[in-house]
Amino acid sequence: MSVLKAALLQMEVQKEIPDSLARAEGMVRQAAEAGAKLALLPEMFCCPYQTQNFPVYAQPQDGEVCRALSRMAKDHGLYLGGSMPESDQEGRVYNTAYVFAPDGSLAAKHRKAHLFDVAVEGGISFRESDTLSPGDGVTTFSTPWGVMGLCVCFDFRFPELVRLMADRGAVAILVPAAFNMTTGPAHWEVLFRARAIDNQLFTLGAAPARDPGSGYTSYGNSMAVSPWGEVLGRLDEREGLLLVDIDPGETGKVRREMPLHFGRRDDIYTLREVERPGR
Amino acid sequence: MSVLKAALLQMEVQKEIPDSLARAEGMVRQAAEAGAKLALLPEMFCCPYQTQNFPVYAQPQDGEVCRALSRMAKDHGLYLGGSMPESDQEGRVYNTAYVFAPDGSLAAKHRKAHLFDVAVEGGISFRESDTLSPGDGVTTFSTPWGVMGLCVCFDFRFPELVRLMADRGAVAILVPAAFNMTTGPAHWEVLFRARAIDNQLFTLGAAPARDPGSGYTSYGNSMAVSPWGEVLGRLDEREGLLLVDIDPGETGKVRREMPLHFGRRDDIYTLREVERPGR
Repeated sequence: MSVLKAALLQMEVQKEIPDSLARAEGMVRQAAEAGAKLALLPEMFCCPYQTQNFPVYAQPQDGEVCRALSRMAKDHGLYLGGSMPESDQEGRVYNTAYVFAPDGSLAAKHRKAHLFDVAVEGGISFRESDTLSPGDGVTTFSTPWGVMGLCVCFDFRFPELVRLMADRGAVAILVPAAFNMTTGPAHWEVLFRARAIDNQLFTLGAAPARDPGSGYTSYGNSMAVSPWGEVLGRLDEREGLLLVDIDPGETGKVRREMPLHFGRRDDIYTLREVERPGR
Repeated sequence: MSVLKAALLQMEVQKEIPDSLARAEGMVRQAAEAGAKLALLPEMFCCPYQTQNFPVYAQPQDGEVCRALSRMAKDHGLYLGGSMPESDQEGRVYNTAYVFAPDGSLAAKHRKAHLFDVAVEGGISFRESDTLSPGDGVTTFSTPWGVMGLCVCFDFRFPELVRLMADRGAVAILVPAAFNMTTGPAHWEVLFRARAIDNQLFTLGAAPARDPGSGYTSYGNSMAVSPWGEVLGRLDEREGLLLVDIDPGETGKVRREMPLHFGRRDDIYTLREVERPGR
C-alpha cells in the first residue's frame, strides 16, 4: 500500500463563514500543491468556538459549507474533513465532522458523541450541551490507504471509542479538535500519543490557530503521531500547515512486533458497540 | 480522607532470594521511617527478569517470599506489594503481585493476565509465555484511603483493565513493572500519564533499578502520576526510593471538574467484566 501524504490545516477561524471558507480553501490548495491526498480542518473551522455561536452558524448538510467542502475536495483531488455546527430538521444542532472524498461525495459524517461540559477550578469552563445535541455512533470509512476513524475533540478522551474504531480496522484516527489553554498543555500530546500506542495506529489532530482575543483560546499544536507513539510533526500556536507521511504498513509492523490486539483478554473483559435498530 | 504517603521502591534485584529480601527490607524500613503507609516493590523484585529464571525462583503462596513480605508489612506497619514468580500445585508458574496489609494479612493478589510476548525489530525480544501461565481477573482491594487497583507491567497496556479497576472505585492503580530500554523511553511515561488522565486516578509504577549487565535491562524511572496527569515524582535509573503524597480527595475534585465518567456513552459502547463461575 502506498504512503499517504496528509495535511493538518491549523487555520484561523474567521467571524464570517465565507471568510473561513476562503481561508480554508487557500490552505487546501497549498496542501494539494504539496502532494497531500488528505487534508484535515479543525473543529468548528467556520464558527468561532462559543456555545452561543453554534445555533447561529449552524447549517443543514446541504448548506453552503458542505457544498463548498465537497467542491474543494473535488477541485483539489483529496479527502477533506473538518467539523462545523450542523442543524437538523427538528432544530437540533450538532458538532459534526464531515469528510468528503476526491470525487466530491460524502465519505464520512460523525456527530460529536461526547459533549464538552467542564468546569475546571481556575481554568476553563464550557458547556457544549447548552446548545448542542450529541451524536450516537462510531464512525469509520474506507480509503485507498485503509480504514480511517473519525471523531471530534472530546470524543477522543474516551478510549472505548478509539478502540472500537481500531477494531473496525482503522489505521489512522482523524480528530478535528480544539483543546484550550487549560487542557492543551496538560493533556493534548499525551492523549494523541497514548491512543496511538494503545491501538497501534496513526493519530492526527487538527486544531484552530490560537486567537488570544477570542472567547475560547485554542491551544493549537496540531499534531500527528505514529503507531509506535512518536510525534511525527507538530505545529506551534500560529496558523500553519503540517504535512506528514502516513505509511499504513507501519501499523502492521508495530502490531506484529507487539501483538497488543492478539494479547487482549476477551475472557476477562469485553468491549462492544451497542447495536441499535435503525443506526 | 487523610493523605496517604506512598513509597515506590526501585530496588536492585539480587541473584539470591534472601539477598533480594534483605535489600527489600532495608528499603521498606527507610520508607516506613519516612512515614510511608504503602510501599511498592518492583515486578519480579526477587527474581532476575529472565524467562528461564521464573520456574527456578517460583514459590508457592505459603513460601519464604510471601511469609517475609507479610512479616515486613506487619513489622513496619504499612501496605506492602510487589510481584514474584508464583508456583501452583499443578506446576504452573505465574507472575503474581501480592499486597500485604499492615496486620500481615493478604490484602490482594493479582496474577499477570497479559503476558509480555514481543519481538521488536532492532529492540527487545521476550516471551513470558514460554514459562509463565496467565492470570484471569481484575484485581482491586480496599484500604483506609479508598479502593486500589493492582496489575503487573504489560497488563497496564490494556486500557480496558484499568478502566474496570476505575469502575470498581479505584483511586489509585499500583503497577509493579519492568519496562526495558526499547519500550521504556518510548512508552513508560505516556502510559502512566494517559491512564491517570483517562480514569482520573493516581498511577504508581515501581520498576527494578537498572543493571546494564543483566539479561533484561530495566528502564527504571519509577513514577507516580496525579489524576490530572501531572508527574508527581520520578526516579532515574538507579536504586532509590520515591515518596509521594496521595490525596484521594483529588480524584473527586478532578472528576467533578471534568466529569469523564458521567460523560461515557453506554448507549454506544459497553465495557464489562466477563463473569465466570467460580471466580
